[in-house]
Amino acid sequence: MAGPVTFDQHPSETLRAGEGFRLSSVDPDSTPGYSGTKDDGRALLAGMDGTLTELQEKLFAASRFGSRQRILLILQAMDTAGKGGIVNHVMAAMDPQGVQFKAFKAPTDEEKSYDFLWRIEKEVPAVGMVGVFDRSHYEDVLIHRVHRWATPDEIKRRYVAINEFEARLVDSGTTVVKVMLHISGDEQKSRLLARLDDPTKHWKYNRGDLDERAFWEDYMEAYQAAIDATSTRNAPWHVVPANKKWYARIAVQQLLLGAMEGMNLEWPKAEFDVATERELVARS
Amino acid sequence: MAGPVTFDQHPSETLRAGEGFRLSSVDPDSTPGYSGTKDDGRALLAGMDGTLTELQEKLFAASRFGSRQRILLILQAMDTAGKGGIVNHVMAAMDPQGVQFKAFKAPTDEEKSYDFLWRIEKEVPAVGMVGVFDRSHYEDVLIHRVHRWATPDEIKRRYVAINEFEARLVDSGTTVVKVMLHISGDEQKSRLLARLDDPTKHWKYNRGDLDERAFWEDYMEAYQAAIDATSTRNAPWHVVPANKKWYARIAVQQLLLGAMEGMNLEWPKAEFDVATERELVARS
Repeated sequence: MAGPVTFDQHPSETLRAGEGFRLSSVDPDSTPGYSGTKDDGRALLAGMDGTLTELQEKLFAASRFGSRQRILLILQAMDTAGKGGIVNHVMAAMDPQGVQFKAFKAPTDEEKSYDFLWRIEKEVPAVGMVGVFDRSHYEDVLIHRVHRWATPDEIKRRYVAINEFEARLVDSGTTVVKVMLHISGDEQKSRLLARLDDPTKHWKYNRGDLDERAFWEDYMEAYQAAIDATSTRNAPWHVVPANKKWYARIAVQQLLLGAMEGMNLEWPKAEFDVATERELVARS
Repeated sequence: MAGPVTFDQHPSETLRAGEGFRLSSVDPDSTPGYSGTKDDGRALLAGMDGTLTELQEKLFAASRFGSRQRILLILQAMDTAGKGGIVNHVMAAMDPQGVQFKAFKAPTDEEKSYDFLWRIEKEVPAVGMVGVFDRSHYEDVLIHRVHRWATPDEIKRRYVAINEFEARLVDSGTTVVKVMLHISGDEQKSRLLARLDDPTKHWKYNRGDLDERAFWEDYMEAYQAAIDATSTRNAPWHVVPANKKWYARIAVQQLLLGAMEGMNLEWPKAEFDVATERELVARS
């Protein structure tokens, strides 16, 4: 039996925002590196669950034997782009015990009284864990730039601080996977309308999303600037076309798989004599 | 087509530790209230996932509209009883965004410097969330009693403190579901041997489990005493026979489902005029 249709080119290459990256050149409708259909994509998503589960368990197991490795997936996107769906459909394969999920909302008064990275530092993943940030410290250079809540100099200071912060995460064993889910303005409109058409989705609708929508171009510019300033070699950005939800999900799944495969995870070797322990258990 | 075989009697009744409960009367091999086979059980587990997902989303949604409701599932058990499998197989149906999982390990020096409930309070679920405690404040009246790390008077003080703490959780909107997974000593032995036979499970094996195993009867007595003292009307204990993993999973799933159904969750009503918003989005 043939397996599911896989990627022709790995998203870690095709979607990475490298030198000269232009957000405006990314078509949110496209499916870079993947020639399969929606059904193929769904089969691939389900088909890789077992691999993801095993890699995660190895990562977790290794942490019990001195490994300092961990992963941090940072998700940024315009409203309705599907961050929640990524978490629900990609992360669902993982054991909840090994996932540290954090959604960053508008900061509290206490959080505002500190540097913007203060609340972030508290949520970085522990060893062996897969951390997921739904929004992140990047809000402080995106919405803050768009609405001029910070001066240009302060925004620049934050880019530098972010790079230093992420370099420290990497140096202490964290694989940082940064993802921008990229939808078009038209797609957002139809998703907002769909929410209004479904009473079970009304709770997700809020007028604030519409207010931000008016600043679409400013956001795209802020994303471009943030990506230019913070897509580093060790913590690069990946821009995932997300008008097709099924594509965004398999692309992020592959980014996670690629990151974890790059960690060379192995089952820890027993630090005890198996025969001796067998004997002790049998006699107990 | 017939649906999966369901319970004859709901686990919230059959497994509840009420007046006169005797742990020694519970057969870890039994499957109270369920007459189906292992395959039936597996089909039921998978078949209820959708219901669980929807209830959880309603719980989460309601919290955005002023509801104070939340759930806390407390899992206690002897080693190898399958807490991890419950989390992985029952909770996996839920959206990771709505789950707050916490495994309590041996307390740190800082945690030890406070009252035993200090570290627990910090981990109680936020509104709209499903909290899961893998071990809990009950360790402080179980292992502490078994090894006499606390005096009998101090253990009694803790029972009272636990009841007051849990009553406060309930009064502030938390549905508390307390579960002891109950395996037999022989079953634990065969599970420990199975870990030793599988190199991918060696990382889960540790000699300490064997040391505790020697105190089996003391643990059973400590569980009985803790259940006697803390199985209250609003936060009752449920003792789930767990020699058959498939049974333990469907039983805990049903306990969660029952708890959530008892919350009378509804999709929040729109607080805006749908037609107006449609118009605004369409024009945006």
